[in-house]
Amino acid sequence: MFRASGSQDIATARAGTNIAFIKYWGVADPELNLPLSNSISMTLASAVTTTTVRWDTRANMYMDEVTIDGETLFGDKASRVVRHLDYIRELAGGVPFRAKVVSQNNFPMASGIASSASGFAALTVAACAAIGLRVEKDRLSAIARRGSGSARRSIFGGFVEWEQGREDNSSVAHQLYPEEHWNLRDVIVVVDSNSKHVSSQRGHVLAATSPFNVARIDRLFSVLQEVRTAIATCDLDRLGPIIERDALAMHGVMMTSNPSLIYWQPATVEVIKAVRRWRDEDNLRAYFTIDAGPNVHIICEPSTEPEILLRLKELSCVEKVITSGPGPEPELLKHHLIK
Amino acid sequence: MFRASGSQDIATARAGTNIAFIKYWGVADPELNLPLSNSISMTLASAVTTTTVRWDTRANMYMDEVTIDGETLFGDKASRVVRHLDYIRELAGGVPFRAKVVSQNNFPMASGIASSASGFAALTVAACAAIGLRVEKDRLSAIARRGSGSARRSIFGGFVEWEQGREDNSSVAHQLYPEEHWNLRDVIVVVDSNSKHVSSQRGHVLAATSPFNVARIDRLFSVLQEVRTAIATCDLDRLGPIIERDALAMHGVMMTSNPSLIYWQPATVEVIKAVRRWRDEDNLRAYFTIDAGPNVHIICEPSTEPEILLRLKELSCVEKVITSGPGPEPELLKHHLIK
Repeated sequence: MFRASGSQDIATARAGTNIAFIKYWGVADPELNLPLSNSISMTLASAVTTTTVRWDTRANMYMDEVTIDGETLFGDKASRVVRHLDYIRELAGGVPFRAKVVSQNNFPMASGIASSASGFAALTVAACAAIGLRVEKDRLSAIARRGSGSARRSIFGGFVEWEQGREDNSSVAHQLYPEEHWNLRDVIVVVDSNSKHVSSQRGHVLAATSPFNVARIDRLFSVLQEVRTAIATCDLDRLGPIIERDALAMHGVMMTSNPSLIYWQPATVEVIKAVRRWRDEDNLRAYFTIDAGPNVHIICEPSTEPEILLRLKELSCVEKVITSGPGPEPELLKHHLIK
Repeated sequence: MFRASGSQDIATARAGTNIAFIKYWGVADPELNLPLSNSISMTLASAVTTTTVRWDTRANMYMDEVTIDGETLFGDKASRVVRHLDYIRELAGGVPFRAKVVSQNNFPMASGIASSASGFAALTVAACAAIGLRVEKDRLSAIARRGSGSARRSIFGGFVEWEQGREDNSSVAHQLYPEEHWNLRDVIVVVDSNSKHVSSQRGHVLAATSPFNVARIDRLFSVLQEVRTAIATCDLDRLGPIIERDALAMHGVMMTSNPSLIYWQPATVEVIKAVRRWRDEDNLRAYFTIDAGPNVHIICEPSTEPEILLRLKELSCVEKVITSGPGPEPELLKHHLIK
């Protein structure tokens, strides 16, 4: 597999992040990012990463150059991207080209909004296109997974399941339903846009040290089936309690791992208790989930969204709100010059 | 077993509450309050309940009268105390006397400072003394347990272990070390003095619905041994990480029970993250634990306590701080008239 002729060396891709209803937490194989269980998510339309990759085919550059959200990264910070570029260079037949990567998130990075999912999805699509690697979507998704486990899900639009699998090729994602199936809303409540202290990558490895890890994984088989059915029938009141419980279970695993990870902030508790209060006292049909960070995702239907936005204005802890419905698979944008 | 002669019908007892290092959460038998595991606690000197019981031996009263913290309780609110009086009446040979009970806590009740432990310990000691029931301490502790599981531990001073047991008589507490053994401090950070929505009594029954309940219980055998050793050697840095982990494990069980119980408030997270930050960044030797409520107990040694109190002043979420060392077993006070 060598560079296809006609590649333009440069490509730009946009990918949506995703919100997991059943979480990916804990790795069976840290190198291959093989998970301990299936996971199910919704790819988001409005929380996206746009990434341009230009391969230096004239071999002028002696190292990769990575800029994310305006900041040029060096050393350790860049190494996760460079390692992914290494893998793509290897797939392209061991080409020696360095790359210039410019990436922009439209939401705060590394704070539990799965920036690595959209980031590595966009990077994979752009880097492969620019180097002329023509691969099936399944394969593309497997490549993305090497960079970040949940990036695998962001290679598909709509509602997506990632099958656990036992090795590189069987750990595959597939679309359950396209984005048109259900206009479910994710109201992302940003309460802290700082980066988290412990990356999810490290947390995945720690999961096995929690006494709760196996207990959570063991019961997911039936839980996953419930989620599939709830999505199939567009039944929010069936989906909601399950996703709240799995989010709390994942954070229970995190808190009891060794060392213990507490990703929550005071505001996290304020928002999740508010959501429960609105539901219990005012029948407001809204459910929460929380990724590996302090921010809260409120899942609801379009009819309830305005009321939720109104109520969130009354909570002083809220920094910013991003709303999104289900989004498409990554798109290759018109090639443009890197500024 | 009938009324001993010479009983004065009235008695006042004071009992300290206790802070559990390894928690009692989940019942094997809700009627007998038989737990799913052993638990270990420290009885507190400064967070106490004082209770006076006067038995109406002239049979003028047609029902029990219960006043706690100045509020006279009726119906459901009083029923837990009345049920305990029923049990003591039965033990005293089925006497028909009603009782007047006046109880005062020196800390906020039902907010995760184990008011039911000190309350039922003081009630048991006062009610038995006033009715002339002379029983061994082991038996007294078994009687107290009927009212509240953790009251069993408050019948002993110092450091106490409650053996799980399989029936009423084998589920016994005993003192590990007296209060003089180690001047360990409990800095109780009250962030919310309101009563909790769901009582611990109900929560204990729900524990079994959590996927994490068995996983927590299963590993306690070795954890308990670690705690015994840490107390034996007065080793805070050995004790601390274990008690933090068990507190988080218990709250993990609570959050994932069905229905889910979130006892935390935003301030709970603020305080526990502060404790970890002080420890990690400034080597301040302090560890937290949390009972079934939002308030945080910071466990430390006397030399660190002033610095912790100083730092807590900077946290706006703190309503009140109570500090305590290990305390004695319940005391029978001089009898006095009920106002």
